[in-house]
Amino acid sequence: MAQKPSIPKGTRDFSPEEVLRRNYIINTLRHNFELFGFQPIETPSFENSSTLMGKYGDEGDRLIFKILNSGDYFSEMDTILKKNKILSFLINDEFFINFYQNYINISNSILSNIPALGKRFEEAERKKIDDLLNLHLSSYYSEIISKTSLNSEQKSFLEDVVRDYRKVILPRCLNVIQKMKFQEGNNIIYQTDINNLSIEILNKYFSRELTSEISEKALRYDLTVPFARYVVQHQNEIEFPFKRYQIQPVWRADRPQKGRFREFFQCDADAVGSDSLLQEVAFVQLYDSVFTDLGLIGTTVKMNNRKILSGLAETIGAADKLIDFTVALDKLDKIGEEGVIKEMLAKGITEEAIERVKPIFNVSGNFAEKLNLLKDLLADSETGKQGIEELEYINTKIEALGLKTVALDLDVTLARGLNYYTGAIFEVSAPEGVKMGSIGGGGRYDDLTGIFGLKNMSGVGISFGLDRIYLVLEELGLFPEQAIKGTRLLFINFGENESLYCLKAVQSLREAGITAELYPDAAKMKKQMSHADKRNIQFVVLAGTQEMEEGVYTLKNMKSGEQQRVSIDGLIKALS
Amino acid sequence: MAQKPSIPKGTRDFSPEEVLRRNYIINTLRHNFELFGFQPIETPSFENSSTLMGKYGDEGDRLIFKILNSGDYFSEMDTILKKNKILSFLINDEFFINFYQNYINISNSILSNIPALGKRFEEAERKKIDDLLNLHLSSYYSEIISKTSLNSEQKSFLEDVVRDYRKVILPRCLNVIQKMKFQEGNNIIYQTDINNLSIEILNKYFSRELTSEISEKALRYDLTVPFARYVVQHQNEIEFPFKRYQIQPVWRADRPQKGRFREFFQCDADAVGSDSLLQEVAFVQLYDSVFTDLGLIGTTVKMNNRKILSGLAETIGAADKLIDFTVALDKLDKIGEEGVIKEMLAKGITEEAIERVKPIFNVSGNFAEKLNLLKDLLADSETGKQGIEELEYINTKIEALGLKTVALDLDVTLARGLNYYTGAIFEVSAPEGVKMGSIGGGGRYDDLTGIFGLKNMSGVGISFGLDRIYLVLEELGLFPEQAIKGTRLLFINFGENESLYCLKAVQSLREAGITAELYPDAAKMKKQMSHADKRNIQFVVLAGTQEMEEGVYTLKNMKSGEQQRVSIDGLIKALS
Repeated sequence: MAQKPSIPKGTRDFSPEEVLRRNYIINTLRHNFELFGFQPIETPSFENSSTLMGKYGDEGDRLIFKILNSGDYFSEMDTILKKNKILSFLINDEFFINFYQNYINISNSILSNIPALGKRFEEAERKKIDDLLNLHLSSYYSEIISKTSLNSEQKSFLEDVVRDYRKVILPRCLNVIQKMKFQEGNNIIYQTDINNLSIEILNKYFSRELTSEISEKALRYDLTVPFARYVVQHQNEIEFPFKRYQIQPVWRADRPQKGRFREFFQCDADAVGSDSLLQEVAFVQLYDSVFTDLGLIGTTVKMNNRKILSGLAETIGAADKLIDFTVALDKLDKIGEEGVIKEMLAKGITEEAIERVKPIFNVSGNFAEKLNLLKDLLADSETGKQGIEELEYINTKIEALGLKTVALDLDVTLARGLNYYTGAIFEVSAPEGVKMGSIGGGGRYDDLTGIFGLKNMSGVGISFGLDRIYLVLEELGLFPEQAIKGTRLLFINFGENESLYCLKAVQSLREAGITAELYPDAAKMKKQMSHADKRNIQFVVLAGTQEMEEGVYTLKNMKSGEQQRVSIDGLIKALS
Repeated sequence: MAQKPSIPKGTRDFSPEEVLRRNYIINTLRHNFELFGFQPIETPSFENSSTLMGKYGDEGDRLIFKILNSGDYFSEMDTILKKNKILSFLINDEFFINFYQNYINISNSILSNIPALGKRFEEAERKKIDDLLNLHLSSYYSEIISKTSLNSEQKSFLEDVVRDYRKVILPRCLNVIQKMKFQEGNNIIYQTDINNLSIEILNKYFSRELTSEISEKALRYDLTVPFARYVVQHQNEIEFPFKRYQIQPVWRADRPQKGRFREFFQCDADAVGSDSLLQEVAFVQLYDSVFTDLGLIGTTVKMNNRKILSGLAETIGAADKLIDFTVALDKLDKIGEEGVIKEMLAKGITEEAIERVKPIFNVSGNFAEKLNLLKDLLADSETGKQGIEELEYINTKIEALGLKTVALDLDVTLARGLNYYTGAIFEVSAPEGVKMGSIGGGGRYDDLTGIFGLKNMSGVGISFGLDRIYLVLEELGLFPEQAIKGTRLLFINFGENESLYCLKAVQSLREAGITAELYPDAAKMKKQMSHADKRNIQFVVLAGTQEMEEGVYTLKNMKSGEQQRVSIDGLIKALS
């Protein structure tokens, strides 16, 4: 009957030592967050699915853990499966092939002037094809209705299906058609494509619909979306600008691998409702304060600005290739200048354009010197100049105020979070010599809460990578001894009377804030000593009849073997 | 497009003030747990379903939040639904009615000597009926096989179904048959019953099977089962006796209602691997230490012992009615002596027996006096005497050591956790006058880890009710001011130069551990002052050109209106 116990892949048990060390980091973060005026909030572990879905892209949606509705979802499922049966019947391979033939025949004239491979449909062309598809679907639907003898309930159901079908499946059809038109010239390929499409669409469509029927809640994927939701929901109770911090676990259905977990803590600090660049200044100081407190000397806060990246792309006439350009640039330290240039060329950025930005591949000097180089390069870009101004403001303030242990650097290749960051971009690297990716990062996003209906709410925030900071502190031996406090004294149990005598001392020690325990049983001396040893308890106390008579306790240092006989006050004094 | 944001019912957002207050309680708990030698562990939020399911009874299983497998579960579902179709075909109403007729006809002779209403089947009778049902099912199965032309795959599938059916459905049949036999005399009722049963069984069976196919993980329901799993999984790394504490959220799909949430924190301390009653003594002291630190004076730790309850039931000859007896007794303070007696009579406990235990309805006096009364009552019960001995041991030790603010009491009506507690039972009540159920509780369980294959591991533990303690502290105004630290000084922003001048002071204050902020924009004075006011910031600092020239800062107390001009050191001094 007994089960061999295990935990789900990608999750972790934390031993006492690990929890104490993690709490040491978390307490240091809490202390500094509060010192800088950030206030803690906490949000529920699961949110309504509608709050989370669609906020992290298709890939993100897939990685969100969904929670099964409680109660009976069996009947709902049955309905959906029935729907599936009818749809499978209606939308079969024949339908797609038929549809394709139809498309070829009817639309040849309309599409005759679309150029070849590599070109995308224009809006107007898409619209025309859309209409055609709709028309085709309608006539197909009428045909089904006329051919079969459906009752009114079945008809209304079929209408539902067709409406859903238009919304979900037509856009996919369009993409396949485009592919057929421009990328392949072979009828067999079309057919395979159509075949796969039919299966894929049905499965995808139904598993999504089914999921939303049998699951309405999901575990949070990060802390930013719940924070945005919190701000909008509680906007009337919040005094802006609002600076909050949040330290809670998040869950991702990622494929587990070394150093990547399905449950992990995020530690975020954000400020919303203020455009002031003093917020960015404060975040640099906050990083400095935290890493200094942790004794982690030699970290670098690298900054960039989305506007500088936009300015660069604009300057070289590749504004529409901003993402391609920055993604390539971001790889500079991995694939080198040559690699970056190769990738940019492949993405259609011209040699001439690359020549213009070449200076940034070998930029050196301090923050101000790098800014000067950018000033030359971006002289013609308003956006670029604005980015430079922002970074200059931040750097000037930081220079005037000074940092304790962190180095502030400008890294023009830094391109994280381009999907949402609109201004400052931060990334923290561990001290040189430690093999570790970034241990923190963040940035400014102009519209944090728009998705929930609250416009014009700028936010800027940073996060600390708890797991990675843990590994770095461990590698460098930076966890202080007292972070793993544990029990300091174990009283050896010699029996009834002795144990009561000991418990009185234990009580006094605890009142003095010293962690002490009595071994719970009058077990063999050897066993008790070994217990102290295995738990790394520094002192044991021996108190037998003789000690009781004299009102003293024999304190033994487990390491040195030294012994002394002292009173309760003497114990407290020795351990303080 | 914008969504109106909300959170799932039964969950909560915590505002900064709430988080700070909750952390104040949690930190007090952590501090005391560690002082008493408990070590923190943390386990994953979700466990394998097999770890949790079946550990909390049927009702508990239903309340566990299941997590949907990521990826494509659509095909699996289809298989199950097919299985359902075949089963529905085989196991229909006709089958049940037929079955009932069969049962009546064949079993009349066997069952003729079962007495009427109120009586349960004895083991031997159950066995006979079981055999009959099995026989019937087998012949029915053979009939199906012979009537239909199934291929080998279908046959093997049908075999699976019948095997599952025996395991899951037969016990339910037995109960219905029992109901038919003993509680109702009407054929129509039988038929309805059979009808409902057929539907209910199919749904229940399939939603359970389906759930286990599409979900393999579930959110933890409490901290005890994950702890037991942890102990077994890590038994080779753990030094026993092992004292651990754990403060983490748990989730239950309970119907949300006032004061009951679907996500809430549990705060547990347990000791495993020692039978010593000194553990119980330490837990009483731990309650005393925590509630004293929280300033919550006047709490009572009520104790009982499962063995005393068993002894009482044994003494009055109702050992087989232990649960009925204690459940009735537990209601003494709600329904009074008369009510309890009525309920006991209804449960079949004799008047004579009740007369014997009557003294415990009006027990009074201190712990020792109550024990004396029990000694008389339980003189003939070995189990009862053992329970008395245990409580006496604990009380004697506590009397010798003394408690700071908690009162220790013996409450013989206390009957929590009878399904698992085997020795001590604890419950803590809030100070008199505060309307609140128990704010903590616990007990000893002889076999904590047996379910995971590690036998003879006794455990004893207590928990603290975070939400309820919060409400009590709030009602009594016991949260200390410094629990809600927040920002103490806001520097008013008068512009570029002034703000840099202020930031230098802010930096020095933070280094001295004082929470200070500069308002991020040079907004109107009124707006900035109002910001300080709304955030309950006690001091503002005004520093314009004049102050800059003199190297001072004007510190204004927002409450009294008092102002003084001081240096940075002066600011630190004034706020320390």
